Amino acid sequence: MPMHSKSAELRRGSRRQPEASRNAILQAALAEFAREGLAGARMDAIAEAAAVNKALLYYYFEDKETLYGSILDRFFERLSERIMAVCDQPGSAGERFLAYARTHYDAIAESPYYAHIFMSELMSASRGGSPHLDRIFARYMRPIAGRVLALVQEGVKRREFRAIDPNQFLPSAIGSIVHYFLTAPLRQKFLPELDTTGALAIQQRRAAVLDFIAASLFADREAGMKLAAKIAARPVSNDKDSAVQRRKGRHS
Amino acid sequence: MPMHSKSAELRRGSRRQPEASRNAILQAALAEFAREGLAGARMDAIAEAAAVNKALLYYYFEDKETLYGSILDRFFERLSERIMAVCDQPGSAGERFLAYARTHYDAIAESPYYAHIFMSELMSASRGGSPHLDRIFARYMRPIAGRVLALVQEGVKRREFRAIDPNQFLPSAIGSIVHYFLTAPLRQKFLPELDTTGALAIQQRRAAVLDFIAASLFADREAGMKLAAKIAARPVSNDKDSAVQRRKGRHS
Repeated sequence: MPMHSKSAELRRGSRRQPEASRNAILQAALAEFAREGLAGARMDAIAEAAAVNKALLYYYFEDKETLYGSILDRFFERLSERIMAVCDQPGSAGERFLAYARTHYDAIAESPYYAHIFMSELMSASRGGSPHLDRIFARYMRPIAGRVLALVQEGVKRREFRAIDPNQFLPSAIGSIVHYFLTAPLRQKFLPELDTTGALAIQQRRAAVLDFIAASLFADREAGMKLAAKIAARPVSNDKDSAVQRRKGRHS
Repeated sequence: MPMHSKSAELRRGSRRQPEASRNAILQAALAEFAREGLAGARMDAIAEAAAVNKALLYYYFEDKETLYGSILDRFFERLSERIMAVCDQPGSAGERFLAYARTHYDAIAESPYYAHIFMSELMSASRGGSPHLDRIFARYMRPIAGRVLALVQEGVKRREFRAIDPNQFLPSAIGSIVHYFLTAPLRQKFLPELDTTGALAIQQRRAAVLDFIAASLFADREAGMKLAAKIAARPVSNDKDSAVQRRKGRHS
């Protein structure tokens, strides 16, 4: 083992930086689970990739299932914080709904492994095998869906949106945001000449998705498309969650 | 084993009705793979559910992997036939594109197991483990995508559609069609009071998806929405594949 790696292990393995060790483990585990699935993932490989010793790994996460659950919780906790913050901003229902759509898009674009882990979870759940989905649904998905549905209802009521059914519109909009990432392995495998993961590609896709949704949703289509272009073009840091903002503030 | 089941086995197990036996096996296998996954599915259970003996099962499909591949092929072959037929119909690009969207929706709504099997396949492919995806992509997905993209390009060129980028628009539209079915287990588990699988629910969702897409796509939005409502309301049998039509014709 090279020297720098050994010292990194000792440094991060120390309980004096528990947050850094925990984050390193969660990062490494996310990649390992996405690559190997829950059944195939190895705790050894996760400890090695996170540069922590196995004792520390088991100190934080008692078994693989707990670690897997923590990854789902961490993603949804951050997503939920960011979406709730955006829904509570001032502005019209249309502005806030498009800001929500952008936040949902950005959260998945920043965590490309996540979409696959969530779909695996959903599929094992449909076979009755997920111990996490009840918690994830009750703690995060139901409150997020309730808040965003209320936003769509508000826009319909105020005639800013067309007279659509929010319970149909929201799953359609979410599908247009999320499905692209689920099918990314197809594009990477069969259309490798397309850049779909670079910063420019992510920005173009973001603008296209917001335009797609706004053009369908707003009563005044031109105004909606203009608003979508404005919100898609906001600097990325505006949509970061408050924890990231605070951390940046501390270091600058 | 009850008598009627025994005689059904003998009847269907006979090589005098090979098509019926093969179909019964594929139907049973689809349900078994969706429930148990590729690794968990058992050939015994498939033979029993199809009411054929194991020798006949292995006569048609030499192993589990071959059977699994045949299911994917059968779905994509039918989907491809139906979509190509719809794209070749007379009518404007808008009429044909909405008819395509309806056909894609109907094909998945009719095969609820399929969406999950395909996502499993996609995820194992992203881990480098799928022997079928190269064939499925080359034989079905690439030609379908090419044909439908050309249709969107035609509509943009003739100004029937807005000046959208077909390579961005198509994945957004497909996401709004498909993702609803991938997340169906969530609705069934946590919102059991919602009817999402009955004939009325499927019809309402179809109308909502076509309206969502048309309202975003057409240069003349009102005309597009009207066309979408008309195409969504067509009787189901109009979109059935020609093989089904022929079979019906033969028996009536």
